[in-house]
Amino acid sequence: MEKLLIVKLGGKVLADESKLNAALSSFADSSLRKILIHGGGNEASDLAEKMNVPVKMIEGRRITDDSMLEIVTMVYGGLINKKIVAQLQSLKINAIGMSGADGNIILSERRPVKTIDYGNVGDIKKINSGNLVKLLENDFVPTICALTHDGKGQLLNTNADTIAAAIAETLSECYDVELCYCFEFRGVLENVADKNSVIPEIDNKEFEKMKISGSINDGMIPKIFNALEASKKGVQKVYICSYESLDHPSKGTQICFK
Amino acid sequence: MEKLLIVKLGGKVLADESKLNAALSSFADSSLRKILIHGGGNEASDLAEKMNVPVKMIEGRRITDDSMLEIVTMVYGGLINKKIVAQLQSLKINAIGMSGADGNIILSERRPVKTIDYGNVGDIKKINSGNLVKLLENDFVPTICALTHDGKGQLLNTNADTIAAAIAETLSECYDVELCYCFEFRGVLENVADKNSVIPEIDNKEFEKMKISGSINDGMIPKIFNALEASKKGVQKVYICSYESLDHPSKGTQICFK
Repeated sequence: MEKLLIVKLGGKVLADESKLNAALSSFADSSLRKILIHGGGNEASDLAEKMNVPVKMIEGRRITDDSMLEIVTMVYGGLINKKIVAQLQSLKINAIGMSGADGNIILSERRPVKTIDYGNVGDIKKINSGNLVKLLENDFVPTICALTHDGKGQLLNTNADTIAAAIAETLSECYDVELCYCFEFRGVLENVADKNSVIPEIDNKEFEKMKISGSINDGMIPKIFNALEASKKGVQKVYICSYESLDHPSKGTQICFK
Repeated sequence: MEKLLIVKLGGKVLADESKLNAALSSFADSSLRKILIHGGGNEASDLAEKMNVPVKMIEGRRITDDSMLEIVTMVYGGLINKKIVAQLQSLKINAIGMSGADGNIILSERRPVKTIDYGNVGDIKKINSGNLVKLLENDFVPTICALTHDGKGQLLNTNADTIAAAIAETLSECYDVELCYCFEFRGVLENVADKNSVIPEIDNKEFEKMKISGSINDGMIPKIFNALEASKKGVQKVYICSYESLDHPSKGTQICFK
């Protein structure tokens, strides 16, 4: 199978122009077919503040009422997506910006209200791999923001990490996928004080041990958990790596479910 | 040659939810390959007001400084484009939302400063028909907003009527194009008081006579002028028609350069 690189750009990279440019350059340097996925939560909160729309978060998840949906649609689908696309085009990468509604690539359903009403938040039902493959095979680079739709005209806000994992899982049936969650470090570090102490590989057993021994930073736990889930569901290779080495993700930490 | 429908949605249709839905339904009803083009000037001005960004217009053209470019990128590329795409998808139309940067479909250059500095406004240099044709032939419906790029990473604001004409002209080399500028009337009216008095056809000679006799509404002059220019440059059929008859644009007024 042909290789496919799928990169999720993290929040701290999006928020810093020089980091974003470095990330897009290293992404452009990869010669593989590829897909970029991004959110933009900090930027959405900034716009909300300017517009006096209250930002409500529960356990790190955004409550998306109608006003907030307009804001994330503008910020994720407009401001950030078009900025990234224009920048990638200047690097001769044939980016095409998309939400999950475009080409019907990500169908979701509104999250049911249990104890919390998240509002216009969508849980992924189906990745339309047919249209994504058509774009990839025609040499486009889908550049996907954290919006999905319900197929009935309603846009929904969906976490970008989850989108990246779902797309990687679905496309792992027709490509040899490398999924990269990138961030500001070179990989998962043995010792946070030593930026070169990258752990080359973490599997599920190792991860359990690290959690028990407390040798792992709390912030890293959900990142590694998500990456392990993707590996478990069949994504061929999953990495946590630096935004500066998207063309060589194996310099980071490979996360394997065994 | 195969037929291709290219529709420019006007401002008054965009601003009214029920009109917009009717327009998208009649667009969806057409069985031709098709492209939709939209602006969103009124909505951009509304957001600017909410954000206390001054709106500056000279002779109906928007001065686009950096703050205003962010606003039009959010409104045209995000809010309006994604809303239209989600609505078209709910009507089983495989819309894919785009700016001119996506797929590098519209390359422009910043308008040179003569007496007026329009700021981040782009004049079209080239329509990349290759990527548009790839999308059309793969059964996507490009849904294009009024943003272009300079190929060096800079987004620019470009008039949607001009984009529609430029795309129609370029694609008239490989398709039998029907270009429709739609609005709230059934066509150009003989008598403004009689909504059924649609003039079936206007050519350049007729247009000159109408201007001299004053039998034509001032607001219609630039619309007909633009349509005549497109016809002159080789677009096979050009119509000014109702947003409710995009599946049968010949019910409106055909504009022919002879």
